Amino acid sequence: MSQILHSSSVKKLITKGLKAECKSLRENNIFPQLKVILVGSDPASLIYTANKKKYCEKIGAICEIVALDEKISEADFRKTIDQINKDELVHGCIIQLPLPKHLSHLDVGHLVVKEKDVDGFNPENLYALMRNGNDSKDFISCTPKGILTLMQESQIAVAGKHVVIVGRSMIVGKPLAMLLTNHNATVTLAHSQTENLKTLTKSCDILVSAIGKANFIDETYISANKNQVIIDVGMNTDAQGQLCGDVHYERVVNLVSAITPVPGGVGPMTIVSLAQNLLQASKNKLSL
Amino acid sequence: MSQILHSSSVKKLITKGLKAECKSLRENNIFPQLKVILVGSDPASLIYTANKKKYCEKIGAICEIVALDEKISEADFRKTIDQINKDELVHGCIIQLPLPKHLSHLDVGHLVVKEKDVDGFNPENLYALMRNGNDSKDFISCTPKGILTLMQESQIAVAGKHVVIVGRSMIVGKPLAMLLTNHNATVTLAHSQTENLKTLTKSCDILVSAIGKANFIDETYISANKNQVIIDVGMNTDAQGQLCGDVHYERVVNLVSAITPVPGGVGPMTIVSLAQNLLQASKNKLSL
Repeated sequence: MSQILHSSSVKKLITKGLKAECKSLRENNIFPQLKVILVGSDPASLIYTANKKKYCEKIGAICEIVALDEKISEADFRKTIDQINKDELVHGCIIQLPLPKHLSHLDVGHLVVKEKDVDGFNPENLYALMRNGNDSKDFISCTPKGILTLMQESQIAVAGKHVVIVGRSMIVGKPLAMLLTNHNATVTLAHSQTENLKTLTKSCDILVSAIGKANFIDETYISANKNQVIIDVGMNTDAQGQLCGDVHYERVVNLVSAITPVPGGVGPMTIVSLAQNLLQASKNKLSL
Repeated sequence: MSQILHSSSVKKLITKGLKAECKSLRENNIFPQLKVILVGSDPASLIYTANKKKYCEKIGAICEIVALDEKISEADFRKTIDQINKDELVHGCIIQLPLPKHLSHLDVGHLVVKEKDVDGFNPENLYALMRNGNDSKDFISCTPKGILTLMQESQIAVAGKHVVIVGRSMIVGKPLAMLLTNHNATVTLAHSQTENLKTLTKSCDILVSAIGKANFIDETYISANKNQVIIDVGMNTDAQGQLCGDVHYERVVNLVSAITPVPGGVGPMTIVSLAQNLLQASKNKLSL
């Protein structure tokens, strides 16, 4: 029987800890506050930002969605972020992606100051990750951090294991490669230009798919030994309009040792990581 | 017959271009200048810094070795670098590693300002590399850049190929993984904790060793198909006191399609990259 890596119980456990931590911060007159910058009204972005707000409030933190007109000028957009960067009451700030076309050339990594960059996109935070500085004050990108937490809490060892990550984005693939390398995994970063992808995916211990292609990874990508762990980062819509992952779950679920479902796998862990980073940012400010 | 990837002819060709570029900069009253900070008198460091100075002068650039006492205080060490960071006449600054013990806790990536960081160790330069910003104004770490140049000039394609890099340092392994990923290679980063290393090294198209262990990679790590490219980054001393690489050259040379010798392979390319970065830094200043 394959182990289904639902994140609900892990999330529940961590949430309990975050609530206690938040309470203790509030008792020290620190009120963790997140600003989520949302430009325009992309339907998926509306859902994602609402979920982030809901979870922050659940643990006792303050979260404001800063909704900006989709035609906002670059100057006004930058001004809004700069004000948040300087706001003493705000501990974390994230920019919901994607940005509208006229802002999409901006490098989000350089917009939010590193101390409030709870998304872990700032060069200093990525550098700390790459360097494995082991400073818990730095912020690790939320999805990679959530994937590691889920595996750790599910007793899936990564040290020495061969992990194949499909997808080389700055949000998942690349930072996850660094994070798992630092945790002693042997990581292969595969992508659209990879030759013999199936040979690679069949040969690894842990397969992470982060490419955004509905049901792309099917049984032909999986080892016959039924000993692989499959982590599905995809959040796609299939031909029937249903939410689905990068992995063809039904065709794969009985061929593996463990697999994350979509929804209910990696997705919720990303928000958990965000909240962890927000509380860390609040504690960092305390120690300044 | 295996192709021996001597860097001499590539170096000659690039040197010619660098000389012409340097001449043209001087005609515009830009005199490219590198400062090499050397603390103490480690014998290998003395040779490396002297080689860097010699090559810079060969192409027409100015290079000063700033020799500091091995007992210099951290404060004085930092002050020296700060002065160089502010010196309008200096275009590039590198810190020769290793530093003595009392300075080895310092993060060299944060010492030299990004505009003069011709070693490519600054967080902003590593971020640009990770992000594949394609901005030629950023500096790519010298050894990774030199390896890519050597392969490109030797008509060794990397796109789509599976590259296994052994060694996950911040100077070679990690930045090289990012650089080759950006050039569409499929990169596996292996290291001391990798299980089944030989299976991995035998299965790849291109094997890069950067671990600093004399003659570690022997015929047992190599595919029987004689179709692999071997890049040896090691600069070690063997039991007989001879300079040697990570790869047992004699045992491997006839089992591969191409291999870099040590010395005369990757090593000289690192200095070429450094000079390229220095001239780039000088040109960047022109355009400011």
